[in-house]
Amino acid sequence: MRRSFLGDNFLLNSEMASLLYHDYAKVMPIIDYHNHLPPQQIAEDHQFENITQAWLYGDHYKWRAMRTLGVEESYITGTKSDKEKFDQWAATVPYTLRNPLYHWTHLELQRYFDINTFLNSSTADYIYEESSRFLQERSHSVLGLLKNRKVEVVCTTDDPTDDLAHHQKFANTGGSLKMFPSFRPDKFILIESDHFLPFIHKLNDVCDTEIKSYTDLLVALQKRAHFFKDLGCRAADHGLEYISQVEYSEQELDRILEIKLSGGQLSFEQVEKFKSAIIYDLGLMYHKLGWVQQFHLGALRNNNPRALRNMGPDTGWDSIGDWSQARTLSKLLARLDNEDKLTKTVIYNLNPADNEVIATMIGNFNDGSIKGKIQFGSGWWFLDQKDGMEKQINALSNMGLLSCFIGMLTDSRSFLSFPRHEYFRRILCNIFGSEIEKGELPNDIEWTGKIIQDICYNNVKHFLGV
Amino acid sequence: MRRSFLGDNFLLNSEMASLLYHDYAKVMPIIDYHNHLPPQQIAEDHQFENITQAWLYGDHYKWRAMRTLGVEESYITGTKSDKEKFDQWAATVPYTLRNPLYHWTHLELQRYFDINTFLNSSTADYIYEESSRFLQERSHSVLGLLKNRKVEVVCTTDDPTDDLAHHQKFANTGGSLKMFPSFRPDKFILIESDHFLPFIHKLNDVCDTEIKSYTDLLVALQKRAHFFKDLGCRAADHGLEYISQVEYSEQELDRILEIKLSGGQLSFEQVEKFKSAIIYDLGLMYHKLGWVQQFHLGALRNNNPRALRNMGPDTGWDSIGDWSQARTLSKLLARLDNEDKLTKTVIYNLNPADNEVIATMIGNFNDGSIKGKIQFGSGWWFLDQKDGMEKQINALSNMGLLSCFIGMLTDSRSFLSFPRHEYFRRILCNIFGSEIEKGELPNDIEWTGKIIQDICYNNVKHFLGV
Amino acid sequence: MRRSFLGDNFLLNSEMASLLYHDYAKVMPIIDYHNHLPPQQIAEDHQFENITQAWLYGDHYKWRAMRTLGVEESYITGTKSDKEKFDQWAATVPYTLRNPLYHWTHLELQRYFDINTFLNSSTADYIYEESSRFLQERSHSVLGLLKNRKVEVVCTTDDPTDDLAHHQKFANTGGSLKMFPSFRPDKFILIESDHFLPFIHKLNDVCDTEIKSYTDLLVALQKRAHFFKDLGCRAADHGLEYISQVEYSEQELDRILEIKLSGGQLSFEQVEKFKSAIIYDLGLMYHKLGWVQQFHLGALRNNNPRALRNMGPDTGWDSIGDWSQARTLSKLLARLDNEDKLTKTVIYNLNPADNEVIATMIGNFNDGSIKGKIQFGSGWWFLDQKDGMEKQINALSNMGLLSCFIGMLTDSRSFLSFPRHEYFRRILCNIFGSEIEKGELPNDIEWTGKIIQDICYNNVKHFLGV
Repeated sequence: MRRSFLGDNFLLNSEMASLLYHDYAKVMPIIDYHNHLPPQQIAEDHQFENITQAWLYGDHYKWRAMRTLGVEESYITGTKSDKEKFDQWAATVPYTLRNPLYHWTHLELQRYFDINTFLNSSTADYIYEESSRFLQERSHSVLGLLKNRKVEVVCTTDDPTDDLAHHQKFANTGGSLKMFPSFRPDKFILIESDHFLPFIHKLNDVCDTEIKSYTDLLVALQKRAHFFKDLGCRAADHGLEYISQVEYSEQELDRILEIKLSGGQLSFEQVEKFKSAIIYDLGLMYHKLGWVQQFHLGALRNNNPRALRNMGPDTGWDSIGDWSQARTLSKLLARLDNEDKLTKTVIYNLNPADNEVIATMIGNFNDGSIKGKIQFGSGWWFLDQKDGMEKQINALSNMGLLSCFIGMLTDSRSFLSFPRHEYFRRILCNIFGSEIEKGELPNDIEWTGKIIQDICYNNVKHFLGV
Repeated sequence: MRRSFLGDNFLLNSEMASLLYHDYAKVMPIIDYHNHLPPQQIAEDHQFENITQAWLYGDHYKWRAMRTLGVEESYITGTKSDKEKFDQWAATVPYTLRNPLYHWTHLELQRYFDINTFLNSSTADYIYEESSRFLQERSHSVLGLLKNRKVEVVCTTDDPTDDLAHHQKFANTGGSLKMFPSFRPDKFILIESDHFLPFIHKLNDVCDTEIKSYTDLLVALQKRAHFFKDLGCRAADHGLEYISQVEYSEQELDRILEIKLSGGQLSFEQVEKFKSAIIYDLGLMYHKLGWVQQFHLGALRNNNPRALRNMGPDTGWDSIGDWSQARTLSKLLARLDNEDKLTKTVIYNLNPADNEVIATMIGNFNDGSIKGKIQFGSGWWFLDQKDGMEKQINALSNMGLLSCFIGMLTDSRSFLSFPRHEYFRRILCNIFGSEIEKGELPNDIEWTGKIIQDICYNNVKHFLGV
Repeated sequence: MRRSFLGDNFLLNSEMASLLYHDYAKVMPIIDYHNHLPPQQIAEDHQFENITQAWLYGDHYKWRAMRTLGVEESYITGTKSDKEKFDQWAATVPYTLRNPLYHWTHLELQRYFDINTFLNSSTADYIYEESSRFLQERSHSVLGLLKNRKVEVVCTTDDPTDDLAHHQKFANTGGSLKMFPSFRPDKFILIESDHFLPFIHKLNDVCDTEIKSYTDLLVALQKRAHFFKDLGCRAADHGLEYISQVEYSEQELDRILEIKLSGGQLSFEQVEKFKSAIIYDLGLMYHKLGWVQQFHLGALRNNNPRALRNMGPDTGWDSIGDWSQARTLSKLLARLDNEDKLTKTVIYNLNPADNEVIATMIGNFNDGSIKGKIQFGSGWWFLDQKDGMEKQINALSNMGLLSCFIGMLTDSRSFLSFPRHEYFRRILCNIFGSEIEKGELPNDIEWTGKIIQDICYNNVKHFLGV
């Protein structure tokens, strides 16, 4: 039985999988608990002029694919027109066979614009016009796009110094969509970075203070966290190569900060000490606030200095690192748990070779206090595709309880990325369905359906309290 | 064709797989060459009062699952009644879908108690009573349970200071089951541990000596090894994070031991030197004794200090580490082989990312002297499930000779774990069967059946000489 | 539907896969862009006397399998007769089920000698005679064997000091096969090795110079590179544990070389500095020459000192290492790219746990200048089998563009290894075909066929400019 591409039963390779998806998973709304959507565009219910703006501005996945095929940068992040850029992307799409971009692209065209044609050079004109026409309609404003996919909640990712003006404004509009900020203090953790000092100055301004000691820094961040909390924030996030966790004294921390503030150079050991401290103290704070803490571990960023000079960070020059993760991650969680101050936690790894380390690490701190307190985060970034999701789901299933999983998030900058939830749900239902067919799971569609609905929606709703 | 859950052809997804399992694998007896069964209960042919005692006392796999779901500790390792504990486990089982616990639980109910009902809250009472009733019968004493699964040999895991009284007693009863001790000198390797000194004192007592030098320690361990050998011991086992292998001098070893014996603190380097030495000298001893040496590498233990304080070790707070394994493991084996004193060896890795490292490492020391001299151990602990076993089998197949594999062991503390051999055999037959069906292997059922019987039984029988 | 072993649709598990292979992949010629074939045997169009010479001399894959089964070394690399050696191999083959050797062995018998019988002890005599008879015919000379598999180009692997006399001679014969040398300067990178000094002396002789400084060394290597280029060389290759990339000064390099040249001992740091420098400077040179640079990373070599003493290197005692690869590899590529002097590059990893690191690393330096400038090399050595290839193809597909892949190479010392290209192509077509059947790819046989032909032939032809 040959299946048709992107048909109703796309990725659902058995009758049981189809049943589980269509009767149980599909109907659930979406809580997108971690993403990089621009709050301003939500607050203003932004309307895109064309598909290039919605799709190609800011999507470094697509940029990397185009560069690999040999497309010139002017058509990617450069000065070419929106239509010229789209044409290059259209010409690239047929070469992305087997990359998730190929699935996402056509799923997004289908779901948002009812376009069932394959994108390539010969269909580029039609698809550009048709999708752009849709995007100019009210039904396809930013809020329309979110409603289209039944999105109930989005949690954006925000710097502690952010004034959250858009969150504030949007909260007052009283729409049915909820938008919460998340607290992402990376700039204040990565003390070795050139961004540290400018952000300290920004934090000084925002808090009307002058940070001179480690305690000053914590107090300022606390102040901001309370401000975030008042606007509905319930989660923090951290993007780190690995968790640092060496020994240090309070005096050392002040000394390290002093050196940095006065423009001095820090040694590797000093950087490690500072990071070990602040990630711990932030953890204590999150526990007090009742927040969820998220760790995105393992990205090797900004590998291409030429590109970094020309385009800045987050433009598609990052990859997967291979640091040892287990021991220091364990140490941090242990320190927090030791005083019973370990808050709900989600750990995302970028290197799939670490899947089993993380899948078993969470079990060390799931202490019976609540369901799924420590979570193995869904396949992230490069792993946000069928293989990656399946491997994460399988590792979690084999070494923990899949039933307690809080499931999928887009982690995306794009309002057109929400079919990824559908993608995840189809994959999830396919896994359960195929095992029922093979007799590896009991033929209990109702119970399996309940577990699937928990993973798609109920667990995360409860976990975040939204 | 939909298969029924846990039916005759459970995990056997082709006709050929079914044939291989039912005609070749199923009939073979079991040699469980590494486990943690309590020798006393075997020697005394213990009778359990109820299923909680047989199933939930001591099974940290189940404990972790319950904690993850949010079950309170009093129902797990605490003071609640056996029935109350069972009820919590029963309520947990439906949430373990896709975890090996789900399969094991129902396989064990079916095999030992003829119970074909799914365990959950509504069947808890019936299953508790029915299984406990069975357990009180003579047919379901500890020896009955082992006979039920055709177990011929069990190798327990014992401390060098153990008096092996139960092994001695049992050996004299003349039953058909053979129980051999295994030598596990971890306490004398992990010199950094608080357990080292108490166990040295215990060893002093048992050997009626006073260990003052490194040589004294070796002599005492040798004495115990010979005592073990007299009771049929043919294997040693070691649970280590990784193999230490740095350079050292004899004088340094004495000095390091001296510091430790006098209550001093050792540096990381000193600990590494001591470990590098003793694992090598033990290796020489095993070669002389004609024993098999086993290495269980890669567990990150006791991650949760709060739990360790309350419950002690081995209560479900361990996970998978990510140390580099290859270089020092190679060094140790090379040092032993260099003098042609490398004994038969089994290497088990806990991190599946190391599968290929181990699968190829064994080939470096398989020197043609005997069949499968160096073994890649079967999927262990967190890897003792379908995915984990398949990955180990595939890595071994692709990079070594699967036909020389000594196959499965339970590594379990529970007398109800022996269906795991069946589980392994079904998976093994399924792999061969499916490849025959696809034409990736020749349709030679007899030869394939022979290879399967070798892996299930003949190879290990020959390897251990039992 | 049961398939027959090694039939027409071997490894092609769907109609679509079969179509793709037979209509698109099979017809393409072979460009074997990296191997270890002996140039002399090509130049002289060598004729083997028997199958043992062609198959068992030099094939350490087969040797390892025999040793694992317990075959004595005299039958492997020792003094037994060719027929006796073959008999031992024949007896071993049935025990290699599920190892790629089983597939390769029978595929090679079928393709080169039209033998459809399974090799084992009872068929050994017949197969020895039949295959040896073929090998003595003109049709089965070395060039005949290559022609048999439609090989258009072979790139051998050669030391910088090699006089390339056979390449020169062969180039003048004007046949249709092209043989190009590749530049493999490992001996001049691994300064810690005992081989370094003898090869420096050899280089001195060949260049009629006396290398005294780091610059002298570079100049000599440049001279040799130009000589290689004149004979059609377009690629360099390097076999390294990992890329070294620490800071150094020019003076340090001279000092380090001086110490080495005067017989002194180098520290680990000095070795790292030297390696960091030379791999960078060679990279600059390759860029200038317009060559492709290849890195084979991650082999842990010469693990067995007893075997090394008796048999020398490359005799089957190597395995997979587990070094951290990402950071220093990134640094080297970044340094080269920073000045826009990063040449076309292929990175092969031996540890499959690094697949995703490499699959994403290449994207950091694919800058849009040409199609697939930085390549993730095909499954190599221990990974050159179905699982290994599939994992490499899947990682590359998910994290890069499979369509830009330059595909398969034999990396072999044997003239009978070319069915590995067929093996790869079947696996590749099976992957595409099965996804079309499942509706995960569009049913566009023509476009998919084009992509497959690109991967099998067109991409590498363009990449190497052959």
